[in-house]
Amino acid sequence: MESMMIYMPIVAAALGLIYMLIKKSWVMKQDAGDGKMKEISDHIYEGALAFLNAEYRLLAIFVIIVSIALAGVSFIVPTTHWMIVIAFIFGAVFSAYAGNIGMKIATKTNVRTTQAARTSLPNALKISFGGGTVMGLGVAGLAVLGLTAFFLIFFHYFMGGAWTNTDQMTIVLETLAGFSLGAESIALFARVGGGIYTKAADVGADLVGKVEAGIPEDDPRNPATIADNVGDNVGDVAGMGADLFGSYVATVLAAMVLGNYIIKDMGGNITAEGFAGIGPVLLPMAIAGAGIIISVIGTMLVKIKNNEAKEAQVMGALNVGNWTSIALVAVACFGLCKYMLPETMNMSFFGEAEDGGNLMKSISSMRVFYATLVGLVVGGVISAVTEYYTGLGKKPILEIVQKSSTGAGTNIIAGLATGMISTFSSVLLFAIAIWASYAFAGFYGVAMAASAMMATTAMQLAIDAFGPIADNAGGIAEMSEQDPIVRERTDILDSVGNTTAATGKGFAIASAALTSLALFAAYVTFTGIDGINIFKAPVLAMLFIGGMVPVVFSALAMNAVGKAAMEMVYEVRRQFKEIAGIMEGTGKPEYDKCVAISTKASLKEMMLPGLLTIGFPLAIAFLPLAFGMENKAIAEMLGGYMAGVTVSGVLWAIFQNNAGGAWDNAKKSFEAGVEINGEMTYKGSDAHKAAVTGDTVGDPFKDTSGPSMNILIKLTCLIGLVIAPILGGHAEDTATAEEVNKNVIQVNVEETTKDNVAINAVTLEEENI
Amino acid sequence: MESMMIYMPIVAAALGLIYMLIKKSWVMKQDAGDGKMKEISDHIYEGALAFLNAEYRLLAIFVIIVSIALAGVSFIVPTTHWMIVIAFIFGAVFSAYAGNIGMKIATKTNVRTTQAARTSLPNALKISFGGGTVMGLGVAGLAVLGLTAFFLIFFHYFMGGAWTNTDQMTIVLETLAGFSLGAESIALFARVGGGIYTKAADVGADLVGKVEAGIPEDDPRNPATIADNVGDNVGDVAGMGADLFGSYVATVLAAMVLGNYIIKDMGGNITAEGFAGIGPVLLPMAIAGAGIIISVIGTMLVKIKNNEAKEAQVMGALNVGNWTSIALVAVACFGLCKYMLPETMNMSFFGEAEDGGNLMKSISSMRVFYATLVGLVVGGVISAVTEYYTGLGKKPILEIVQKSSTGAGTNIIAGLATGMISTFSSVLLFAIAIWASYAFAGFYGVAMAASAMMATTAMQLAIDAFGPIADNAGGIAEMSEQDPIVRERTDILDSVGNTTAATGKGFAIASAALTSLALFAAYVTFTGIDGINIFKAPVLAMLFIGGMVPVVFSALAMNAVGKAAMEMVYEVRRQFKEIAGIMEGTGKPEYDKCVAISTKASLKEMMLPGLLTIGFPLAIAFLPLAFGMENKAIAEMLGGYMAGVTVSGVLWAIFQNNAGGAWDNAKKSFEAGVEINGEMTYKGSDAHKAAVTGDTVGDPFKDTSGPSMNILIKLTCLIGLVIAPILGGHAEDTATAEEVNKNVIQVNVEETTKDNVAINAVTLEEENI
Repeated sequence: MESMMIYMPIVAAALGLIYMLIKKSWVMKQDAGDGKMKEISDHIYEGALAFLNAEYRLLAIFVIIVSIALAGVSFIVPTTHWMIVIAFIFGAVFSAYAGNIGMKIATKTNVRTTQAARTSLPNALKISFGGGTVMGLGVAGLAVLGLTAFFLIFFHYFMGGAWTNTDQMTIVLETLAGFSLGAESIALFARVGGGIYTKAADVGADLVGKVEAGIPEDDPRNPATIADNVGDNVGDVAGMGADLFGSYVATVLAAMVLGNYIIKDMGGNITAEGFAGIGPVLLPMAIAGAGIIISVIGTMLVKIKNNEAKEAQVMGALNVGNWTSIALVAVACFGLCKYMLPETMNMSFFGEAEDGGNLMKSISSMRVFYATLVGLVVGGVISAVTEYYTGLGKKPILEIVQKSSTGAGTNIIAGLATGMISTFSSVLLFAIAIWASYAFAGFYGVAMAASAMMATTAMQLAIDAFGPIADNAGGIAEMSEQDPIVRERTDILDSVGNTTAATGKGFAIASAALTSLALFAAYVTFTGIDGINIFKAPVLAMLFIGGMVPVVFSALAMNAVGKAAMEMVYEVRRQFKEIAGIMEGTGKPEYDKCVAISTKASLKEMMLPGLLTIGFPLAIAFLPLAFGMENKAIAEMLGGYMAGVTVSGVLWAIFQNNAGGAWDNAKKSFEAGVEINGEMTYKGSDAHKAAVTGDTVGDPFKDTSGPSMNILIKLTCLIGLVIAPILGGHAEDTATAEEVNKNVIQVNVEETTKDNVAINAVTLEEENI
Repeated sequence: MESMMIYMPIVAAALGLIYMLIKKSWVMKQDAGDGKMKEISDHIYEGALAFLNAEYRLLAIFVIIVSIALAGVSFIVPTTHWMIVIAFIFGAVFSAYAGNIGMKIATKTNVRTTQAARTSLPNALKISFGGGTVMGLGVAGLAVLGLTAFFLIFFHYFMGGAWTNTDQMTIVLETLAGFSLGAESIALFARVGGGIYTKAADVGADLVGKVEAGIPEDDPRNPATIADNVGDNVGDVAGMGADLFGSYVATVLAAMVLGNYIIKDMGGNITAEGFAGIGPVLLPMAIAGAGIIISVIGTMLVKIKNNEAKEAQVMGALNVGNWTSIALVAVACFGLCKYMLPETMNMSFFGEAEDGGNLMKSISSMRVFYATLVGLVVGGVISAVTEYYTGLGKKPILEIVQKSSTGAGTNIIAGLATGMISTFSSVLLFAIAIWASYAFAGFYGVAMAASAMMATTAMQLAIDAFGPIADNAGGIAEMSEQDPIVRERTDILDSVGNTTAATGKGFAIASAALTSLALFAAYVTFTGIDGINIFKAPVLAMLFIGGMVPVVFSALAMNAVGKAAMEMVYEVRRQFKEIAGIMEGTGKPEYDKCVAISTKASLKEMMLPGLLTIGFPLAIAFLPLAFGMENKAIAEMLGGYMAGVTVSGVLWAIFQNNAGGAWDNAKKSFEAGVEINGEMTYKGSDAHKAAVTGDTVGDPFKDTSGPSMNILIKLTCLIGLVIAPILGGHAEDTATAEEVNKNVIQVNVEETTKDNVAINAVTLEEENI
C-alpha cells in the first residue's frame, strides 16, 4: 500500500481530468442560442484563437532558443542532465495547452451562459461556473499530471525507482525544475501579453466608442468590441490559468527540493519510514493530488436555487464551495502529514546555533501540519483583506467616492493612497506567515504552507474564471440585443466575478510570494552558500537592483498598454470615418482588424519586460563569472537579487492590484448612486467622470502590471534555481551529521581546503527539545 | 601643527558662520520696497514664524519625552552615557535653529528680491542667491560647529583629549550619536510637517481660488494665498534645511564610527601616525570643514552680468559655482586623505576570506580618496539623471505632454510610468556607488563617499533655497501689482529654481541613501553580529516589513495633505461667502485664519507618520526583548528591517520625486505652448487641464511624501545605531589581530563560550596584495 502511494497524485490528477472532460461535454451540449449570439461568440472564439496561435508561434521560437541554451549548459555542467531540456519543453507545452483549454471552454461557455440567463439565474450560474470548473480542473490536473509523471520518470531513470542518496535525488529534482521553468516562462508571456492585450482593447474601445462617439459599452457598432471581449479571455482566463499553473508546479517543486534536504539532514536515508524512503519529497505531490479531488467536491457544492437571488447569495454559494475545500484540505493535510512523514524529523536551522552555526532540531510531523494550517489561514485572511480594500460599500471605496467630488486629482490621490495603505496588513500577514511556518518546520514549513494554500487551485480558478465568462455573457447579451432581464442576470454574476477577481489576485500574490521564498530557500540550500548576507556590499547592491526591477517592469507594462491602446484608437477612428453606414448599423465594422492590432501590439510589447525578467538574473550570474569572480560570491549576489525582487514585487503587486480594484469599484459605486456631501450622485455626474479617470489609471495597474508581479518573482527565483548548479552545488561539500536518532545535534562546520590552512571542526551537542 | 588639525573643522565652521552673518547683514540692508510689498512680506514672515513657533512648542514636548527615555536607557545600559541626553537636546535645538535662520532670511529676502527685480535681473539673482547663501552656510556651519564641538568635548571628557582605546572612542561616538538623533528627529517633523503645510495651502488655495472662483494664482483676494507663500518657506526652506542638516551630521558621524573600527583593525593604536592617533576618525570632519570654506568660494562665483539673460545663463552661473565647489572638494579630499590617513591601513572585509570569515586587507590612503571621488561623481550624475527625467523639453516630459491630449487618465499613467522608469538608472548608479566605494575602502569608503558628496551641502542648499525665495518674490510681485517686467524676471529665477529643486531632491536622496548604508554598517559593526543574513526567516520577515513602511508612510503623508487641504477649502469657501466685498477687493480676507488652519492641520497630521517611523524600530527591538529572545537575533532582525526601509525608501523617493517633478514641468510646458499632433496647444486647453490634474497628484508626491523618505531611512538607521548598545556592543568580544604591520592577515574567529563546547580558531595567512 505504502509503495503505491507514489502513484496517488497521478491517479488523482487523471480522475480530475476525466471529471473535467465529462463537465466539458456537458457544457458543450448546452444550447448555444440563436444565430446572432452564436455569430458573436464565434467572433470572440476566433479572435482568442488567433491571438493564442500567434503567441504560441512566437513562444515556440523562445522555447527553441532556451532549449538550445539549456542543452549547452547541460553539456558543460556535470550536475545538469540533458533531460532538463525535455522537461522544459513539456512544461512549456503543458502550460500552453492548459491555457488553451481554459480559453476554449471560456469562449464556448459565454454564449451558453447568455442563453441560460434567458431562462433563469441558477442555470446561468450553473453553466458559467461549469465552464470555470473545466478551466480550473484542466489547469490543476495538467499541472499535477505533468509534474508527477516527470518525477516518476526521472525517479526511475536516475534512481531506479528507489531511494539511493540525496545527491541523486537532487539531480532528479534539478531536472524536474526544467518542467517548472518551462511552465513559468510561458506564464510570463501569457500574463504580460494577455494583460497588455485586454487593456489595450478595453481602453481603445472605451476612448473612441464611449467617450468620443458616445455609444454604450459592448455596442456591436464599435469595431474594437470583439477585441475587448477577446481580451477578457486571453488576459483574465488564459493569463490567470498559466500563472496559477506555474505557481502550482513551482510550489510543489520547491517543497520537494526542501523535502530532499530533510532526508539529508536525517542521515541521508529514511527507507525504514516507508514511501520508498521519500516521504517528505512525496508529501507536497500527495497534497496537490488530494487537492484536485477535494476541488471536484467543492465545485459540486456551488449552486443556487432561487431565481430571484442577488449578489450576496451567489457569493454565498461560491463561498460554501471554497471554504469547504479549504477545510477538507486541512483535514487531508493532517492525515497525509501523519501518514507520510516520519514521526519526528531532523531539520537543520540555519545560523541558530549559539556560535552562529546551523542548529539541528527535532521536528514532529504535526509541526509540518501546523505549517500547512498557517498557509491555509493566511490564504483566507489575505483574500478577506483584499476584499476590504477593494469591496463595494467598504470604507476605503466610500472615501475614494467622496474624493471624486473634488475632481480627478483627488480621486487619483485617494486611490493611490488606498493601494499603498493596503500593503500594511498584507505584508504584516506575510511576515507572520513566513515567521510562523518557518518556526514550525523551517523553510520546508514555508514551502508546505504554500503547497497547502495552492491545493485548492482548481477551485480558486473555477471561481476566478467564471467572472470573465459572465462578463462576456453580458457583452453577448448586449451585442445581440437581448431582453434587459438577461443582462440583469449576467450583471449579477459579473459583479460577483469582480469581487472574486480581486480576491483571486490576493490569493495569487500570496501563493507566489510563499513559492518564491521556498524557491529562494531551495536555491540557497542547493548552492551550499552561507546564507545571503546583505552586510556584503555586492549583495546589498544586488538587493537594491532587485528592488528596482519590479518597478521598472511595471512601468514598461503600463507604457505598453498605452502604446497599444493608441494604435487601437487610431484604427477605430479610421473605421468610424471610412466605413459607410457604420454608425447606423448598416455598415459592418472590421472586427478582425482590431483583433489583429491588439494581437500584434501585445506580442511586440511583451518582449521588453520579458527580456528584463530573464536577462537580469542571467547577467548577474554570468557577467561576474566571465570576469572570474568566485562562484559562491556570485551565488550570494544572485540570492540578494532574488530577495530584492521578491520583497519589492510583493509590495508593488499588492499596491497595484488593490489600487486598481478600488478605483474600479469606486467607479461602479456610481451606477447605483452614491451620497456625496448629502446629495445623491449618479453616473454622468462630474464626480463620476473623475472616478472614470481613476479607473482608466487603475486598469493597467490591476490587469497588466500588478498581476505580472507574481510571475516576475516566481520566474526570477526559478531561474536562480535552474542555474544554481553552474554556480554551486556546494551543498554536498559541507559535512553532515551521519548518525542521528531523535537526538538534537548541533553542528557547526567550518571547512577550508586551501593551501596552507585547514580547519574542520564539528561540534556535537546533545540535548532534547 | 598636526595636533592642531583637530580644531580645523570648528574654525572652518566658525569662519563660514561669520561670512554668513556678513552676508546676512548685507541682504538686510537692501531696499525692502514700498508699503504694500512690505506688508505682504510681513504677513508671510509672521505666518512662517507662527508655524515654526507652534511646531517648536510641540517638538519641545517630544524632545523632553525622548530625553527622559534616553536618560532611562543610559541608567540601565552601561555603555550608554547620560551625556547622550545633552547631545540629543543640543542636536534638536541646533537643527531647529538652523531651520529658523533659513526661514527668517528667506522671508526677508523675498521682498528684497522683488524690489531688486524692478531694477535688473542680475541684482535680483544676487539678492535671492545671497539669501540662499545665508541659509546654506547657516545650516552647514551649525552642523559642523555642533558636531565637532561636541566631539571635542566628549573626546576630552571620556579620553582626556588623547587616544586611549577603541572602546572609549566607541563611547565618545555613541554619545555623539545623540546629537545626530536630535537633529534627525527635528528634521523628520520639519520635513513632514512642512511638507503637509505647503501642499495643503497650495492645493486649498488652487482648488477654491483658481478652479472655483477663477482668480489667478497669488491673487491677494484669495485668503489662502499668504498660507501658500508661507508654505514655500516652511516646507521647501526650513524642511529642506533641517533635512540636509540631519544628513550632514549623520554622514560625518557614520564615517567617524567606521573610522574608529579601522584603528581597531590596525591594532587599536595608530598614535605614531599623527593627528592625536585618530586620523581616520578626524578625516570626515576635516572634509566637512573644508567643504564649508569651499562653499563660500563657490557661492562667490555665482553671478550674471547681462540684464537680458534667460534661464540658461542663470543656470550656467549656478553651475559654475556648483561644479567649482565639487572640483575643489575633490582636491581637498586628495590632500586631506594623503595628509591625515596612514599611508596604508588595515581594514577587515566581512565574509571575504576563503572560509567565509573576515579578510583583513591592506588599503592605501589613496583608495579612500578614490572612494570620495565615487561619491562626488555619483552625486553629480544622479542630479543629471534627475534633470533628464524632470527637465522641460526633455523626452519624458514631452511624452507626458502628448499623453495629456487623451485626458487626465493617460497623463497620470504616463507620469507614474516616468517616475517608475526613472528608478532604473538611479538605482543602477547607487548599486555601482555602493560596490565601487566599498571595493576601494570597505564601508568606510561608502561613508567617505557620502561625506565627500555632502561636503558641498552649503552650496547645494544655497542653490536650493534660492528657488523658493524667487518663487515668493514672484508672488509678492503679483500681489503688490508690480510692472509685468518684474514678474518676468522673477519667473526666470523661479523656473531655474524648479530645476534646482528637482536636482536638489536627487542629491538629497543620494546622500541619504549612502548615509543610511554607512549607519547600517556602523550598526552591524557595533553590535558585533555576524552580518545580516536574510536566509533566516525572522530577518527575512523584517526585510518585508521594512520594505512596507515607506509605502505606508507615503500613503499617510498623502492622506494628510488631502485632509488638511479639505479644511482649507472649506475655510476659503466660507470667507468668500461671508466677507462682504472680498471679490471686489474692498473686503479684507482673513489671511491669519488660513495660516492657523494649515499650521494646526499639518502639526496634527505629522504625528502618525512620525509615530510609524519611530515606533517600528523600537517595537522590533523591544517586543522580542520582552519575550526573552536572544539579543543578537534581535539585532539581526532590526538590521533586516533597516535594509528593507532603505531599499524601499530609496525606490519610493526616486519614484515620487521624479513623477511629481515630471508632472509639474509637463503642466508648465503649456505656458509657452506645446505641439500636440501637429497643433500648437496652450494654457486653458483640455490637454492643459489634464496636465493640471497630473500636477495635483504630483504635488504631495514631490513635496510631501517623496522628500520625507530621506529622513525616514536616515532616522530608522540612526535609531538602530542609538539602541545598538542595548542589543549588542558584542564587537569587543570577538578577537582581533593584535600586531599588524602592512601585511595582510586573514582572520577567522569562531568563539563559543557555552557550557560544553568552545572552539577558538584563528587563522593567519600572510600575503601581499
